[in-house]
Amino acid sequence: MTMSATISTQPYSRIFNFSAGPCTLPVEVLEEARDGLMNWNGFGASVLEMSHRSKAFDGILNTAIEDLRELMGIPANYKVLFLQGGASLQFSMIPMNLRPHGSSVDHIVTGAWGKKSVEASNLYGGKTSVIYDAKESNYNHTPKLAGLPINRDNAYVYFTSNETIQGVNYLSDPEVDGNVWICDMSSDILSRPVDVSKYGLIFAGVQKNMGPAGAVLVIIREDLLERVPQGMPPMLDYRLMAENNSLYNTPPCWSIYMCGLVYQWMKKNGGVAAMHVRNENKAKLIYDAIDNSAFYKGHAVPENRSRMNITFTLPSEELGKQFVAEAKAEGMIELNGHRSVGGCRASIYNAFPVEGCQALADFMKAFELANG
Amino acid sequence: MTMSATISTQPYSRIFNFSAGPCTLPVEVLEEARDGLMNWNGFGASVLEMSHRSKAFDGILNTAIEDLRELMGIPANYKVLFLQGGASLQFSMIPMNLRPHGSSVDHIVTGAWGKKSVEASNLYGGKTSVIYDAKESNYNHTPKLAGLPINRDNAYVYFTSNETIQGVNYLSDPEVDGNVWICDMSSDILSRPVDVSKYGLIFAGVQKNMGPAGAVLVIIREDLLERVPQGMPPMLDYRLMAENNSLYNTPPCWSIYMCGLVYQWMKKNGGVAAMHVRNENKAKLIYDAIDNSAFYKGHAVPENRSRMNITFTLPSEELGKQFVAEAKAEGMIELNGHRSVGGCRASIYNAFPVEGCQALADFMKAFELANG
Repeated sequence: MTMSATISTQPYSRIFNFSAGPCTLPVEVLEEARDGLMNWNGFGASVLEMSHRSKAFDGILNTAIEDLRELMGIPANYKVLFLQGGASLQFSMIPMNLRPHGSSVDHIVTGAWGKKSVEASNLYGGKTSVIYDAKESNYNHTPKLAGLPINRDNAYVYFTSNETIQGVNYLSDPEVDGNVWICDMSSDILSRPVDVSKYGLIFAGVQKNMGPAGAVLVIIREDLLERVPQGMPPMLDYRLMAENNSLYNTPPCWSIYMCGLVYQWMKKNGGVAAMHVRNENKAKLIYDAIDNSAFYKGHAVPENRSRMNITFTLPSEELGKQFVAEAKAEGMIELNGHRSVGGCRASIYNAFPVEGCQALADFMKAFELANG
Repeated sequence: MTMSATISTQPYSRIFNFSAGPCTLPVEVLEEARDGLMNWNGFGASVLEMSHRSKAFDGILNTAIEDLRELMGIPANYKVLFLQGGASLQFSMIPMNLRPHGSSVDHIVTGAWGKKSVEASNLYGGKTSVIYDAKESNYNHTPKLAGLPINRDNAYVYFTSNETIQGVNYLSDPEVDGNVWICDMSSDILSRPVDVSKYGLIFAGVQKNMGPAGAVLVIIREDLLERVPQGMPPMLDYRLMAENNSLYNTPPCWSIYMCGLVYQWMKKNGGVAAMHVRNENKAKLIYDAIDNSAFYKGHAVPENRSRMNITFTLPSEELGKQFVAEAKAEGMIELNGHRSVGGCRASIYNAFPVEGCQALADFMKAFELANG
């Protein structure tokens, strides 16, 4: 085990942080944030201290929105909102806002987050139909969206593009078929090209591919705002938030600022297409280590493997714990898997360095040699 | 006008930022945050990148809670929560959680935020009685809490300890009288000693006296959690949040971390009692400039003047605009008053330096001399 040398060459003696979120941010983004922390761009105060009603913050917010629009190719008839409460509050806001009283909705459950969305949806009137649940296979795959038994007259069809805990994903968009598709993209947004026009609403907690925890991004097709009922709690009302450009009350300014820096970093580094290629290569390093071994076993079926969260088990629970502990000693942290899957999970979002993927792959080979 | 010399002596060429929130944070706190931004305390990553399920973040969260408990003397039968959605979401969460179906509640309205709390409360069943509304005087005072026509059998009595926009406040706690008192302390929490045991629930957006925007503090007496009805949207459920120590989902980690640094800064600087003395002295510098002049007119009646938000008008709207513009040129920003009050507002929370109050008082005298 001689990974330490590799890790010690990282800038600022940074470790390889495989956390599923909050998680690794780009070094250049952190440097810029640091450099502005006492006095942002000669403003005389930091972004942390800036009035959300100031021209300066307005510029930060609107630049972030414009950069995101450019990166994702968001059509003009979609609103971009930065809200609070994380993806978890969206599980409730979506039915509250977009589900006409008593109507039914369809959910596809491919992992833990999809399941939570159903639990929240069940608290409202009308039927929440789970048209697919991958529970029997312990959520190791994603079914093709085309061909699922979608109910007629549903208010929307809901799915999760990447299940963070199980490490399964979708790599293509749904076909426009008269349904309103709603997608939780928390853990793979901006990791690959997406055709936004295929969706009614896309949401994502920002703390994986975009910035620090504290904000949730909502991209919503404007016509859906007409569904928002009267009498909503103001902070949960998509229409009110859209009318106020996310500035109805004090927004999570710092999270938005950091997202903006990440968007700029992405633009400088080739945008979503380049991230996609990079992510494929990064994931391949680790999946190859799994596939070229009888020691490690991937949780997801190969065709639905996540490029963001790589889940695998070792021959025993004890070996898994030993692996996580030894990896930590080598400067690779947060490799423990979720208890529902067991084993290990390596989360390698956009900002996670390729060197860390190589270091893990090397470590996996060395660990197998020593313990296999 | 020769204030520039004063301002240029500020560390890092920082201006005097009179923003009502987000607002000035302590320089020492910003320095510590900056120094940890690439690698926090040798952890190998920043707090921005840290898993909220890590031991490191657990330590940050629990230390912040313990320090706040010590600073405010929070009794053991109160829970301390860090939630999202700002004080504005509390306006809805309070009735949703603590108002038994169909019961009535009493609200005291002394300014803009109290008014918003009534609007949100009116969206729920049962009666929201406004037992006092200072509207006729354009919210220039606060009535004594004792002696108000509180309804019997109310679920709670609600008031705002400091109205940020109008600049009026309460300087004493309500008497325990069988009522459950709920208080929005967003803009004066930790600025003066408070007897927490007199309240059922205290809440405060953190972005004034505690940290950057993105979190809201809720201090709730445990027995009130029993009121929380079944079937709440999970993210809006006080009981669920309390059971999970604010870690039901990913919390606003960075805002909590920054609050923790501010609590430590307060402890090092004499705690709430010392802040109180300092705030009285800071406010006096500016109120004296108002009182010793026929040019400036304070909005609030002297006995209810806020120590956090000082509101005053000039002889004409034009002079007010000129004042704000010239002050900005001298390095004093965000002095414009809210349109509902007009004139100027100087927000001088705990972390705002006394030098800035002196600079503003000096500028006021000079401006009056030139334009009075």
